[in-house]
Amino acid sequence: MNEAACFEALTPTSFLLRSGRVYADRCAVIDDERHFSYAELLDRCLRLGGALRNLGVPEGGRVAVLAPNTHVLLESHYGVPFAGAVLVALNMRLPASDLSLIVAHSGAQVLIYDYELERTARDIAAQVGGALRLVRAGRPEDEYESLLRNADPWRRAVTDECGLLSINYTSGTTGKPKGVMYHHRGAYLQALAMTMETRLDCDSIFLWTLPMFHCNGWCFTWGVTAAGAVHRCLRKFDAGLVWKHLRNSNVTHFNGAPTVLIMLAWHPDAARLPRAVRVATGGAPPTPALLERMSELGINVTHLYGLTETFGPAVICEWRGEWSELTIAEQAQIKARQGVGNVVSQQLRVVDLQGNDVPPDGTTLGEIALRGNNVMLGYYQDEIATRNAIPDGWLRTGDLGVMYSDGYIELKDRAKDIIISGGENIASIEVERTLCAHPAVMEAAVVAQSDPVWGEVPVAFVTLKAGAGVTEDELVAYARAQMAHFKAPKRVVFGDLPRNATGKIQKFVLRDRARELNRK
Amino acid sequence: MNEAACFEALTPTSFLLRSGRVYADRCAVIDDERHFSYAELLDRCLRLGGALRNLGVPEGGRVAVLAPNTHVLLESHYGVPFAGAVLVALNMRLPASDLSLIVAHSGAQVLIYDYELERTARDIAAQVGGALRLVRAGRPEDEYESLLRNADPWRRAVTDECGLLSINYTSGTTGKPKGVMYHHRGAYLQALAMTMETRLDCDSIFLWTLPMFHCNGWCFTWGVTAAGAVHRCLRKFDAGLVWKHLRNSNVTHFNGAPTVLIMLAWHPDAARLPRAVRVATGGAPPTPALLERMSELGINVTHLYGLTETFGPAVICEWRGEWSELTIAEQAQIKARQGVGNVVSQQLRVVDLQGNDVPPDGTTLGEIALRGNNVMLGYYQDEIATRNAIPDGWLRTGDLGVMYSDGYIELKDRAKDIIISGGENIASIEVERTLCAHPAVMEAAVVAQSDPVWGEVPVAFVTLKAGAGVTEDELVAYARAQMAHFKAPKRVVFGDLPRNATGKIQKFVLRDRARELNRK
Repeated sequence: MNEAACFEALTPTSFLLRSGRVYADRCAVIDDERHFSYAELLDRCLRLGGALRNLGVPEGGRVAVLAPNTHVLLESHYGVPFAGAVLVALNMRLPASDLSLIVAHSGAQVLIYDYELERTARDIAAQVGGALRLVRAGRPEDEYESLLRNADPWRRAVTDECGLLSINYTSGTTGKPKGVMYHHRGAYLQALAMTMETRLDCDSIFLWTLPMFHCNGWCFTWGVTAAGAVHRCLRKFDAGLVWKHLRNSNVTHFNGAPTVLIMLAWHPDAARLPRAVRVATGGAPPTPALLERMSELGINVTHLYGLTETFGPAVICEWRGEWSELTIAEQAQIKARQGVGNVVSQQLRVVDLQGNDVPPDGTTLGEIALRGNNVMLGYYQDEIATRNAIPDGWLRTGDLGVMYSDGYIELKDRAKDIIISGGENIASIEVERTLCAHPAVMEAAVVAQSDPVWGEVPVAFVTLKAGAGVTEDELVAYARAQMAHFKAPKRVVFGDLPRNATGKIQKFVLRDRARELNRK
Repeated sequence: MNEAACFEALTPTSFLLRSGRVYADRCAVIDDERHFSYAELLDRCLRLGGALRNLGVPEGGRVAVLAPNTHVLLESHYGVPFAGAVLVALNMRLPASDLSLIVAHSGAQVLIYDYELERTARDIAAQVGGALRLVRAGRPEDEYESLLRNADPWRRAVTDECGLLSINYTSGTTGKPKGVMYHHRGAYLQALAMTMETRLDCDSIFLWTLPMFHCNGWCFTWGVTAAGAVHRCLRKFDAGLVWKHLRNSNVTHFNGAPTVLIMLAWHPDAARLPRAVRVATGGAPPTPALLERMSELGINVTHLYGLTETFGPAVICEWRGEWSELTIAEQAQIKARQGVGNVVSQQLRVVDLQGNDVPPDGTTLGEIALRGNNVMLGYYQDEIATRNAIPDGWLRTGDLGVMYSDGYIELKDRAKDIIISGGENIASIEVERTLCAHPAVMEAAVVAQSDPVWGEVPVAFVTLKAGAGVTEDELVAYARAQMAHFKAPKRVVFGDLPRNATGKIQKFVLRDRARELNRK
């Protein structure tokens, strides 16, 4: 037996080593005016490895990157691990005050930043202190390019596939942010799963609508490369621009939260596409109205579910050919389910407070729990939080859901978003889905308002489609006609919804507003 | 850090655990009249695990299976590892005398055999001695079914993913057979690669034309299950029956050596298919004539390359969209190349006798060498052969080829099949390809004949298409018009080609015949 020949550490950087050879002369990256072939991308990433070594980054050192979805942030997903270092991709929508806490917590000694974020980068450096080496990037004249030019291509071999690859800080609406530790092995397997589940191949063109700093772009930063497909970068999400790419750039795949899809679906430029485009969505279940609209537009929606702690989408609503013959409404009902573990995931469970499986009856609520190779190592330098999240070898997601008899799960609510009215549980998601079925409603968020009689009652915050009109009373009446009366919102407030830096609706802000309403 | 939650041993049996839940009620296996859903397949395999435990098979014990491509052989790919045992899938085309040597060498204590192979099984048992427990299988009344019925579903967890999963004996035209040891990790990754590279998904129907006893069916035994596709079993390859399935059973995928494709391509029932069918071929490069014919029939051919020692196809001729716009002849030339490492393979090399890379110029001949997670552990109880095959951490394939500047390799010949004429190398494959371009030729095999002047000269053995006619002189003249004169065959002999038990052409038999020709 010669173990040397048959064991190679699993690392997602190996996909670039392969595509850099196999697809050497083919397009890897398009970022505005800049185009890189796979050979060029590989060369640049190896030079980044060399450049970080030249900057004195040791094995296991942390390198933070603050950038939109550009080639720089993509390259850091390879160049930083090539240097043997750990990638900390920062959420560029956070203020410098939050980011400096994250950078300090991670112990990063280098911060690569996009030239448009110069002020934020300088603020972070000032708050963190003198040890942080800043590297400006994004344009040909920025230092990043000269560092690459002056470095030799270099990489450190990965010896421990369970070693630390990246730290992804959760957006954490409250409390201090937690650094989710990704390992090479998990990212490798998750990237393969994403490639396979979304049918990426070497003729695909992937549009970067999903931030790469979200779970390393759900591991598509590596999966798109594994397929040898094109990374089409996008500095900023803009629905009109995305429609331009969908029409003119032969885009075959993109990802985004339902919020993003909503912005696209009812955009003035929205029009049926001549070829099939696949979009993977997660973060919230797509509503039937949205799925119907996307289907009209020729966009095939796959519903995924996961957490930062699970390398992004560990769960997929696996679609069966026979389901495509159902009505759109029936399809939407199936597609609203989060689904089953993806092809590399281990078993998915819905457990009670004692950690026992709830019956798979589609109604008994429990917490969704996961384990397997695409679960994090733990939270960086936070043993207590790690133990709380993984009390018994199963990661608790904090999401409440049910298990169906066919093994598919459906999320009912975040544990903290459930509304308890007269002793009955109301899933805010259920009320939101009902409201979104109204033709005038574009998006809805429902939260609890304290009530002297019922304990809590649901209150809805609603954004209408452009040009559409409906009154509060009409919408309440609509909801009461569709569902149990106690679940229908007692009040409806129209307007834009508050979002956090990652685009998620901030329900704690809405709860404050609901409290204000009580006082009025 | 809680390692328990984020590390799960990689094993291809996990794909059945998943598909048994996710696709529980969907069709997993069709074997003549018998249909099993994925839940049933999982249950049967777990019962096989329990049954083998009941028979006293210990952890690490070997279980041999002698069967055509039936559900029994498929089930053994899960049930045997569920029992913690090691699968030895026997080549049913070998005589009992060879098989008894293999069974004895493997130390198998149980032999599951198909009822049609009763005599062979009894002969093996007689030659191996009394310790071998025979289990007849294949029909409802056979013992295998009662063992399953009376066993509890059971499995032993895989603790070491680099542990032994199966032993695949090479057909070895000469010398004693060697037992190639597969590990769980390699089979898991190779199965994922096969699924991805051939675009299998849960709506695919895979026809089992490739023997499952070849490299565990190139790991498609596990890969088809990973995709949740249908295993359509086939007791015996019969071109007419395969055409019936292609027309009537919605088959989307199958695999086979070019020999198998040749039998299909010019079969009287061959007709263009209404939907795309993918076939993966390996063992020899498909000729341009064959590729052109398959294209007419609506069958998309992927060219793969590998050895028993590499879990089957570690190499794939990755196809790029833009190549589909070339002429069929140009496409065939590209597709004749073996290609590049597949998505889970490590780098592929072509090395000289000192183990150094030859220049990637498309002409310098060297030996193809491989390493990575889809390389065997070694040969079972044969340290010397293992060391010879893997002298320096790189598996030597025994195949001679060239490396092109784009990183694709092309096989020129087996090291032992090269013909040296007047000091010049003649690749037998090149001569064969030239002859196959003649419209009357179905298949050709070229070997060396000793010659007093040139040392060796090429002699061709040719099978003509049904109803086609060409003379020896015409064919020699045709070859001389196409290639360097010294490469053209000096003689052509018409007739059927001798094959070994795995269907490969036996060139050593042809060399004997060529020697006979010299004496006449």
